[in-house]
Amino acid sequence: MSTKYIIIGGDAAGMSAASRIKRNDPSADVIVYERDAYISYAACGIPYWLGGVVNSDEELQMMTPEIAKEKRGIDVFVNHEVVAIEAAQRHVTVHDLKKGELDDVSFDHLIIATGASAIRPNIPGALATGVFTLRTLADGKSIFKFLEENDPKKAVIVGAGYVGLEMAEAFRNKGIEVHLVELAPHIMPNFSAEMVEEVTEHLKANGVKLYLESKVKAIKEQKTGLKLEMEGPTASLNADIIILATGVKPNSDLAKEAGLKMGKSGAIWVNNRLKTNVDRIWAAGDCVELEHRVLGESVWLPLAPSANKTGRIAGDNASGGHTIFPGIVGTNVVKVFDYTLAMTGLTEKQALDSEKFTHATSVVITENDRAKYYPGGEPVKIKLVFDKRDKKIIGAQIVGKGEVAKRIDVIATAISGGMTADDLAMLDLSYAPPFAPVYDPVNVVGSVAGKR
Amino acid sequence: MSTKYIIIGGDAAGMSAASRIKRNDPSADVIVYERDAYISYAACGIPYWLGGVVNSDEELQMMTPEIAKEKRGIDVFVNHEVVAIEAAQRHVTVHDLKKGELDDVSFDHLIIATGASAIRPNIPGALATGVFTLRTLADGKSIFKFLEENDPKKAVIVGAGYVGLEMAEAFRNKGIEVHLVELAPHIMPNFSAEMVEEVTEHLKANGVKLYLESKVKAIKEQKTGLKLEMEGPTASLNADIIILATGVKPNSDLAKEAGLKMGKSGAIWVNNRLKTNVDRIWAAGDCVELEHRVLGESVWLPLAPSANKTGRIAGDNASGGHTIFPGIVGTNVVKVFDYTLAMTGLTEKQALDSEKFTHATSVVITENDRAKYYPGGEPVKIKLVFDKRDKKIIGAQIVGKGEVAKRIDVIATAISGGMTADDLAMLDLSYAPPFAPVYDPVNVVGSVAGKR
Repeated sequence: MSTKYIIIGGDAAGMSAASRIKRNDPSADVIVYERDAYISYAACGIPYWLGGVVNSDEELQMMTPEIAKEKRGIDVFVNHEVVAIEAAQRHVTVHDLKKGELDDVSFDHLIIATGASAIRPNIPGALATGVFTLRTLADGKSIFKFLEENDPKKAVIVGAGYVGLEMAEAFRNKGIEVHLVELAPHIMPNFSAEMVEEVTEHLKANGVKLYLESKVKAIKEQKTGLKLEMEGPTASLNADIIILATGVKPNSDLAKEAGLKMGKSGAIWVNNRLKTNVDRIWAAGDCVELEHRVLGESVWLPLAPSANKTGRIAGDNASGGHTIFPGIVGTNVVKVFDYTLAMTGLTEKQALDSEKFTHATSVVITENDRAKYYPGGEPVKIKLVFDKRDKKIIGAQIVGKGEVAKRIDVIATAISGGMTADDLAMLDLSYAPPFAPVYDPVNVVGSVAGKR
Repeated sequence: MSTKYIIIGGDAAGMSAASRIKRNDPSADVIVYERDAYISYAACGIPYWLGGVVNSDEELQMMTPEIAKEKRGIDVFVNHEVVAIEAAQRHVTVHDLKKGELDDVSFDHLIIATGASAIRPNIPGALATGVFTLRTLADGKSIFKFLEENDPKKAVIVGAGYVGLEMAEAFRNKGIEVHLVELAPHIMPNFSAEMVEEVTEHLKANGVKLYLESKVKAIKEQKTGLKLEMEGPTASLNADIIILATGVKPNSDLAKEAGLKMGKSGAIWVNNRLKTNVDRIWAAGDCVELEHRVLGESVWLPLAPSANKTGRIAGDNASGGHTIFPGIVGTNVVKVFDYTLAMTGLTEKQALDSEKFTHATSVVITENDRAKYYPGGEPVKIKLVFDKRDKKIIGAQIVGKGEVAKRIDVIATAISGGMTADDLAMLDLSYAPPFAPVYDPVNVVGSVAGKR
């Protein structure tokens, strides 16, 4: 008899797990339940579709249930929500959202890949017409429809993190007036203040109006649109459309109710093979905590690359493999008009707040990303956080118009290899005038830190 | 009394050493002898100046003797060639090339930074008018002058390595017909044949005519230009200008005659602090062999980044510092019109030829460098060479129109960290649709290799 795998969630982690199981064990019964209408789509691409950079939402859909069945032999049920897990009995209760029927289904192995949800702030009017969060493709489609039907002229975006900034660019691309509201004293609150100054000016130069240290108290529907009542320097703002981009939370209630062990963050606890504390129950993707290799403890940092990797590994281990997930170092990047903003490891503040890095310090440099005489070069600013005792690299942030993303990858790799600032200074990096100066900015920041 | 440092050679390594000494010991007497007329220039930028990408050769000159004196207190003598080193007596014989006078000068510490020279093949006509090598700024100026005065229509470039390809692009930028002659069966002979196929087609598409497995036997001056007599599929070629780009050799004769220890390659032997086998005599830059971290032995691989680094370190150690050069991993990159071609570590052939890597194997993948749906993405092809026993990464080559240079840097860093293919697969690299797919091509090649 074939082994039966149930996977809760049909996005990156869930479908990665499903595909890996079928590759390891082609005779397996692999069933995916997805409460939404879509599976396996590129959520990170939605702002680019809404901004007109990507032509169609179909380009964002990597797979359909039909293709999953035909090409990989995976049975996907969309609009099916798993509402309960009986861990000991090894079955789940599935709610067919279209038919309204409940069904009990048994499993040999269960993979929980329920992802994360946008946080909708608990304020009056948060559910008013024209107010959106953006996390799922369904969210994207709602916004797209609203843009088509209502042709909004003025948008307020609440939250100047990744999604907020990407949506600011998307709306500006569409010629929409953008007002960006942020609770913190600067945009991208997880970056150092000094690293986002230029990007802040760049946002303004691109017509984005900023409202920092501002809190939305209520949203009111008016005859001619929406009104935000605020706490902060500006008392109120009018809008034709509002995007609430104030963060995400793990979808871990189902697992919690099933008695599975939770992490400190409220996301699901897993070991380095993506197993929960219960045999035959695995979890992966944006609903789990993962080991942060720098901090040496589990954190919740829901990003697409680790969702894909952990899904694949959970699927592998559930179907007889033995793969270890080495953890994350917290690398991420965002495009903000012509600028790129990237980080890896810990910020200086995170480091100093942790018990492990009470000796953290930092240096900041700005260097051209190409040979100075070669046209088209742009300065990149790098902040390197390191331990002043042994010079071990703890984290880095890079910002600039030049090549930023792959330089943060070099430092992420150095962090994964346990390197010091001196190691960074001496890395044998590629050089030719169109690509780098003879000392790459990454070498330079290592060298400056090494001398401290 | 102040310590007296003599530095032979005023380019990257020599001037880096001089600057570092003055920083460590401001009262030091630092004297640089340069046999050429220029110091501290960006030799790698010369093809871009000749091709019109860089406006003036002055942009390539990082420093003049006047500035070196004024800003750093370094005494630079150009057109001064050191013709003998008396190691035991600690003095050098200097030939003032303008005045024709010889002088004996004593030193407390000597740094040899004599660099490398272009090899001019020993064939009849190699010194004919209109035949050039390209290594120094003086070479570049000669070519520039020839282009201005003679407006050549047809160039033959002998050697399809870095300089040959960069000059092919430079001449095409100038509207000059380019014929590229190469002894080996493919361009860029130090790359794998399979990795240069696309670039070969791209060269042809950009109007570069290729003559592979072809050897120049003689160059003849004719009434209307130059004629190359060849061995290979084509018997002869006409040219208005010829660039001989057939490689370089270390300028180590002076050190050899002084009795210093030489490496197997014929370049100067140094330890990891850049000291020669004689106390108080140091050497750095393109004239020395350096430890190859992958091979675990010294090799001669004259590239600008290590010339700069080793110069600085030699200067530091000569003036009381204690800095270790960790070695190179052989990273390099070249732009070929719209393509980038990069490598790090060993090629598969180099690995198999070495005693250390008899179990080397490789995989090749081609992946988009951005999310597929995001416009402007380009495929990059990666070959990863690794040890089939422990999966340790031995080398990589990357080619494509997309972001190649910094991806080779990620792998170079992974090699420096002693990582395996599985480590590469699991690297936490930055992801956003404009910069990478969710699995970066670097992750993918690691993953594919890991499964071998």
